[in-house]
Formats: sequence, C-alpha cells, structure tokens
Amino acid sequence: MRRLTPLLGRLALAGLLVSIALGRADAQARSDDEVRQLLRAYREQHEASILREFTEFLALRNLASDSATIRQNAYAIVAMLAKRGIESRLLESPGSPPAVWGELTISPTARTVILYAHYDGQPVDTARWVTQPWRPTLRSRALFDGGKEIPLPRDGERIDPEARIYARSASDDKAPIVAVLSALDALRAAHIQPSVNLKLFLDGEEEAGSSHMAAMLTAHKDLLASDGWLFLDGPVHQSRQAQIVYGVRGDMGLNLTVYGSKRPLHSGHYGNWAPNPIAMLVHLLASMRDASGHITIAGYYDNVRPLSDAERRAFASVPPVEQQLKAELGLAEAEGGDGALAERLALPAFNMSGIAGGGVGAKGSNTIVSEAKAFVDLRLVPDQQPEGVKRLIEAHLERMGYHVVHEAPDSLTRRRFSRIVNVEWGDGYAAVRVSPDHPFARAVTHGLEAALGHSVIQVPTLGGSLPLAPFEAVLHPPLVVLPMANHDNNQHAENENLRVQNMWDAIEMFGGLIVHLGREWTAHP
Amino acid sequence: MRRLTPLLGRLALAGLLVSIALGRADAQARSDDEVRQLLRAYREQHEASILREFTEFLALRNLASDSATIRQNAYAIVAMLAKRGIESRLLESPGSPPAVWGELTISPTARTVILYAHYDGQPVDTARWVTQPWRPTLRSRALFDGGKEIPLPRDGERIDPEARIYARSASDDKAPIVAVLSALDALRAAHIQPSVNLKLFLDGEEEAGSSHMAAMLTAHKDLLASDGWLFLDGPVHQSRQAQIVYGVRGDMGLNLTVYGSKRPLHSGHYGNWAPNPIAMLVHLLASMRDASGHITIAGYYDNVRPLSDAERRAFASVPPVEQQLKAELGLAEAEGGDGALAERLALPAFNMSGIAGGGVGAKGSNTIVSEAKAFVDLRLVPDQQPEGVKRLIEAHLERMGYHVVHEAPDSLTRRRFSRIVNVEWGDGYAAVRVSPDHPFARAVTHGLEAALGHSVIQVPTLGGSLPLAPFEAVLHPPLVVLPMANHDNNQHAENENLRVQNMWDAIEMFGGLIVHLGREWTAHP
Repeated sequence: MRRLTPLLGRLALAGLLVSIALGRADAQARSDDEVRQLLRAYREQHEASILREFTEFLALRNLASDSATIRQNAYAIVAMLAKRGIESRLLESPGSPPAVWGELTISPTARTVILYAHYDGQPVDTARWVTQPWRPTLRSRALFDGGKEIPLPRDGERIDPEARIYARSASDDKAPIVAVLSALDALRAAHIQPSVNLKLFLDGEEEAGSSHMAAMLTAHKDLLASDGWLFLDGPVHQSRQAQIVYGVRGDMGLNLTVYGSKRPLHSGHYGNWAPNPIAMLVHLLASMRDASGHITIAGYYDNVRPLSDAERRAFASVPPVEQQLKAELGLAEAEGGDGALAERLALPAFNMSGIAGGGVGAKGSNTIVSEAKAFVDLRLVPDQQPEGVKRLIEAHLERMGYHVVHEAPDSLTRRRFSRIVNVEWGDGYAAVRVSPDHPFARAVTHGLEAALGHSVIQVPTLGGSLPLAPFEAVLHPPLVVLPMANHDNNQHAENENLRVQNMWDAIEMFGGLIVHLGREWTAHP
Repeated sequence: MRRLTPLLGRLALAGLLVSIALGRADAQARSDDEVRQLLRAYREQHEASILREFTEFLALRNLASDSATIRQNAYAIVAMLAKRGIESRLLESPGSPPAVWGELTISPTARTVILYAHYDGQPVDTARWVTQPWRPTLRSRALFDGGKEIPLPRDGERIDPEARIYARSASDDKAPIVAVLSALDALRAAHIQPSVNLKLFLDGEEEAGSSHMAAMLTAHKDLLASDGWLFLDGPVHQSRQAQIVYGVRGDMGLNLTVYGSKRPLHSGHYGNWAPNPIAMLVHLLASMRDASGHITIAGYYDNVRPLSDAERRAFASVPPVEQQLKAELGLAEAEGGDGALAERLALPAFNMSGIAGGGVGAKGSNTIVSEAKAFVDLRLVPDQQPEGVKRLIEAHLERMGYHVVHEAPDSLTRRRFSRIVNVEWGDGYAAVRVSPDHPFARAVTHGLEAALGHSVIQVPTLGGSLPLAPFEAVLHPPLVVLPMANHDNNQHAENENLRVQNMWDAIEMFGGLIVHLGREWTAHP
C-alpha cells in the first residue's frame, strides 16, 4: 500500500496549526481527522433516517426497459435533491430514460467535479430471490451467513454495521446516490463547505448498455462542463478497503441462438438423425473459449493494449485476496490457474453467463428441442472496439460452418443452411483507462487519502464495466472511478445487497473527498 | 413393402367362400373386408362418443410422480372397463402407481395375448403449451398448420379426420387404451368374437422409467401368464402407414451439474478468474459426443450387437421418408449426414435434451453463475446394459479431470476439487429386439395384414423406448410393438397431440387384429 506522501502529511499538519493558531473552526480550517469525526458523528445520529431514505428509494422498480416505472426513480431523485435545496432537472434524450442533473456551486473560481451514479438496475429472475427485488429487506447479516430479516432501526437507534440491505440496486448503483446526499447533509450540519463545485449526473440506463449516452452528453454538453468526472460505482476491494480505479473494462452482450427442427421432437424416434441444437451450441461455445478462460477466436488479442509501467506498479499496490476469496467462494482453484485476480481482470473476458434449451432435473423430458440459446457477456480492454470484436466473432462463427443471421431465420433459410446461428448484439462500449499519473487522478487519490487518514489501493482497471467510453469520446474529461459497495454484494444476480458498514464508510469517503479534493488539486497541479 | 403372402390370400378367399356357402354371418366366417367395414361403420356412427370418452380421460392429470392424481387415472380406467363388463383390478407394487389389469376370456383353448399401454405422461413445461396440457382441446388441424380450436362433435356428427386433439398423453399413450376399448365395443356390436383371449396391462409409470416394473411383474406373475405381449405405444411410420416393430431402444436419463463459486458473481469483477460453470459444462458435454451424433466416450460402442441379416432385410422394407421429413421439419441436413432414419435409430444415442444455467435473452444478466446443469437422454441398443453405460460415462468424467459425486457437494468437497460433477442417474432399462422370424412376430404381422388388407412396414427397432427389458427378464414372452400415433405428435414435448384419423385407423387395426390373430397363429405355428 502507498503511504501518505510526506508533503501531504506536512500540509495537513500546517492546516491544523493554522486552524489552532487562528482559533477558527470553519470548514477550510478543520483538520482531516475533525472532518472525518464530524461526518461520523452525524451519521451515527441519523442511521435510521439514512436507511429509511435508502429503502424508500430501493422500493422503486428500476428496469431501464420499463419506461414508466424507471421514470418514477428520476422523479424521486429530483425530490430528494429539492429537499436539500440542490438545483436539478431531468436531461432527456430520445429513447432513453432521463438522466438526473443537479448542481451545487461553491465559487466561480473553484474547480468543478461531476459525480456520476446510475439509478437503473439489472434484470431480475424473481424466482431466485429469497425476498423480492423491490421489497428492500434488512437482514442481521449476509444471507450466506444465515442473516435473518430484521426491522429498520427507529430514529436515534443504531444498527449493527454487518447488517445488509437486500434489494435490486442496493449496491449497484443506488447506494452512492444516498451516500453522497447524506454526506452533503452531514457537511451542511457541520457548516463545512465543499472545496469544489459539484454537479451530479445520475444515469438511468447504465445496466441496459447506455446506448443513448453519446447523444445525451452531446445534447447537454454545456451543462456538463467540468474539470473531471468521478464515477461512483462498483465494489471496494475484497479486503474491504477503499480503492480508487483508473479504468474499467468495456462491455458487450451477445445472444446466440442455434436451430434444429422446426418443432421439438421425441429424442427416441429422432435422436441420432435430427440435428440437436444443444449439442450444436455446446460445440460452438467450446470452440470460442477454452476451459482456462483463454479466448480461442482468431485475432482476438491482436488489439489488446499492453499494461504501462505505471499500471504495473499500481497492480503491485493491490493486496493479495486470492486465498481469502477462494475460501469464501468455496473454490479449489481459480480459472486459468493462480494468476492475481486484478491482473486477470485486465484481460478480455468471454463470460458465458446464460445457456438455455429444453428442461433439466424435474423438467427434463426426452425431447430434441428446436433451438438452444446462450448469452455471453464480453468484457473488452483497451484498445478493443465493439465493432472489431463483432467482426472477429462473426468471422469465427462462419469459419465454424455457421450461416450468421441477425433475426430468427425463415423456413427457406432453415432448409438451405444446416447450421444457422442468430447473433443478437447488445449495445456495447469500449474500455477506458486513465494514467495513474494524471493530475486529476492524483488529486482524487490524495484527497481520498486525506479523507480516510490512510493510503488507498490503486487499481489500473476494474474488471467491471461502466459506460465511460462515450464520456471520454464526447466530453474528454479525466475520469476516475470511486467504488463503495461490498465485493460480496451479489451484484447483477439474485439477492443483491449492500453491507451497512459500506454505506457508513462511503459517507465518510465521499464527504471527506468533497472537502479535501479542491485543496489537493491546488497543491498538486 | 411386403405383399400379402399367397397362402394368406388363399385362406382369406377360402374363408369368404365358406361364409357365403353356409349363409352364415358369425364372427369366424366374416371376411377380412367385412370385419374392417363393420369396424368402420361402427366408428362412423360413434365418433362423438369415442372422442368424448377420450377427452374425459385426457383431462386427468397424469404425472407418475404425483401419486394422488396418477391414481385417479387408474380408477377411471377401471370404470371404463367395468362399463364394458371386462373384469379388472389394480395391481400394486410398493412405490409405484398401480397397473390396471383386465381380462376378457374367449375360450380356455385359445391363445392369450396381453395388450400393454401406459396411462402416465411426460412432465410438462406449461408455459410452452398453447392450451394447457390437461385441458384437452380439439383443433381443426395441426397447430403448425394453423389449426383453430373447435368444439367436440355432437352425437351422430362426423368430424374432419385431420382434426387433432391436443393434451398431454393424447398420443403417448392414452390413445391406444381408448382405441382398444372402442374396437371391442365395435366387435361386440357386430357380434364378432375375438380369436384370442385378451388381457390388458396398463402401466402407470412408463414415462418415469418404470423402475418398479420388475417387482410388479414378479409379484403378479400368475395373472400375467400369456403367449405373447403386444405393446401399443409409439408412432406409426412417417408415411402415415402402419408399422410393426420388433424391438425398442433402451433408455436412461442422466442429469449433470457442475459447480463454480458458491454464490453467483459479477462477470466483470470476476470474469477470467472465477471458474465459469457454463463454460465447464460446455466443454464437458462437447467431450462426450461430436457434432455428428457419434459418442466419443471410450469403449461406448464395444457392446453394441450388430444387425442380423433378417433385421437388415426388414430395414429395406421401410419406405424412405428422409426427404419428406426434412421438408416438414425445416431441415437442410440430418445429423451425421444422409443415413436412413431407421438405421440411424438402431445406434446408441446421446441426446442432449436440456441445458440450463443463468438467463438468456431478456433474462440475461452479467453474472457468473454458481452451477450449470444438463439433462441427457441416453438411448441404448442391444446388448448395452444400463450399469455398463453408467460405468463408461463416469470413467469418462474422471478422465476429464472431474471428481464425480452423486449429490450436491459440501463446502469441503468444493474447496478440495476444482472440477466437480454431480451425476444423477434416472432409472434406466436395456433395449430389446425380437427376431422378425419368431412365430408370434409372424402371426401379428399376418394378422395385421389381414386386418388392414395390405402389407405393413416392419421395423427391427423403434428409435423410441419402452420398458420391455423387465418383461423379457421376468416373463420371457415374445413381444412385439404395434404403434398407432401420428409421427408428428410432439410426443414428450409441449402441444402433444393425436391426429383423429390415427384413432380411427387404430380402431380398425386393433379390432381386426383381435379377430384375425388367433387364426394366423394357428395357420403359421
């Protein structure tokens, strides 16, 4: 771990001495420790109301594809901002849920930072949820630890910080919205001013691929002028320590369907003669990725940007978590052997995330199905581009003898080609990585270290994805990711949850950073 | 196609002459044609009541696994037999649904034939049914032909024979029960006596693997004494002509589960590091069977009995249907190239019938799932035995580096083995094939040709399966299969149906055979 720089230590000490010498207690003069303690004290007195606001927000159904209900989330956020006197409005772009924009100006001479979070969530398979995704449920601990449902605390009551809130988007990504607003409440209560002008940009279709983001940013370019973007999304390090992230992988969804007979057939009377779509799909998928995770599509790694020396050094700052994780996840071995997690995540990934055809277990029947489907989540790294990846994959499918179509094939096509694959591409975006040496990256890192009172882990790239590519392309800001969720949050899956302590940590982290960021930026231009 | 033998032609003519000469119209003296016409005339007058009895029977939920409702089917059959004055009782065996036994004795000197059918049905995935599986629905034609729901005919009304009845077990295998009882009604109305003593044995767990059949047959051995069994199950030839079948493939179900992390993981933050169970399963399945249907498990074909010369001759009697089928099913090519369907079905099959893990399409989410499952339907041929096949497959899984378990692995096991497969074997049974030259086989063939007035297709083995192995093992009877369902019946899958003409054909086929079988058996001992 990196320690606080001697310079930073000296500055903090100098600030404290000034503060004592002048006998003042205003924002600028408070020590890093005081700020942290004030934020904590406020939170300890308001745990019930913070969780209440959070769970009311989580109770709103938030699938980007459901245009009526997703908009209710945006309205709720506008109300949450209005309650705090923060100017806000909905930014619209055709075909997209609105983004919520808010602004809190401190001084025309201060730098401006935009805080990004998203209020939409991943699709849900409700049958797999222990409690329903939009009925936020507080549990005494994690479900996998035997957590039981408990009531929300009453005003003034404290809560065990190992408790967890279960709901879709509890961690990904409604939590940062509530954490930032609670941090602003705490700063206001302590009469501490932010050191930067703040803008909020709260996205409504991140989980749906943010396909309208470029248009959205272009349409509202003036409102979105800034000196840097902070993306509040993703999980903290598996060691439960804060981490700052200089990049993310890109993401692209791929649905594949292969076809057999037009109708399902009895596997006895046709098995060995009728083409079996499950067998076809299994061989097709097996041809694209080996058991170690290596992608076996010709040319797939050609555009992968190598890691820089600064990035390699940053990786070395990441504490090893592999042994702990394997124990926690019940694994004997990681995929592809014993590489460090953080470095494995800097590679392109071909994640087979879903497969379906016929029934299994009690639903198994002796049938040859007429089609089989797979959903693949592709993670891209710099400098892979979505269009290039599409071309490589479709070329591979053709090399495997498949006729590639982009909608369900008609009878004529089925009669003509013995192997047909319907390829449906989801909206995708490229990866982004900012150098750890960029001034904004350094200011955030130092500001965060001041906020927390210790060094933070620096990760060149998160394994996860955020739609940063259009931000970079349209607005060219420096951008850095600051996650807050617990790593064991079941993000994207059933029983998504936030560990309460992570909300408390985030309030101190975001609150402290808002206070210290401007100072660090000036100190290290 | 085999033509009527000259001897048979002469005998039929002789019978007709005797009948005319004596001026008699009793059963023994009726010509083959007269019998067929009387059966047809009866049916034409009773179409409504036959379909009414059939649909009332189909309305009974009939999963062998549902011990309460499956029994209601047995009670209904007992009532249907009682209405006709046929002695019956339920045969019980611990853990099994009852079998329904019935007896209709003509003469102590006549030969005795047992007619087998089963009243249970395959599991259903109701979401895939256009109308619900136990709401029998009459449609003007096949669904894939745009068939619309139509009312049942009223008494005396005729119905378009291309209409179809949609319900679970409409074809597999409640239809033969109603066809035989209707044939007996018709013979009784025409005062025509069967030429053999009849016993009925109506199975209640065929689709569940008939695991209790050996115990059932052993317990009721005396009641089940006979000179031969006729198994009324399966589809007629794809050319819609009757076929007689001398054997069936064996069947065994196999559920495989492979495991990754104990909980689902975000595919971004763990993809490339956490083992991916879908990828593991895909590679495992691909290792067991190639794209042409050939099973790539070491030693798998070692025990396969070669076809005899008589069987090869019989295969030559099967009309080619491959081109028609490919057009009907929307296929460019059969699996494994252009082998004849009938001969491909004499090979062992490794039918991947179901696969599941995560979500696809609208349910796709960027997750690495914690387990993935496949259901494989194995079709066995003589002389493969279920136990031998199990050993070969488990040995293959071990060679692929998997630790084989037979229940969900505990945490310790998951931590110890990086590749674990949970193997759940369904009850299985071996294949059976009787020689086309066996006297019973020949009598059935000739009796059927007399019933229909033309030759029939002879198939050495059906691709489908019936639990004939325990019958052979316990009772050692000669056994022959006589199917009646349309081949395009969606058997085992959603929207199972029976084409009405197949019910009408079956009444003439079964009725005629009951009249002629004893005579043919005596004529060709």
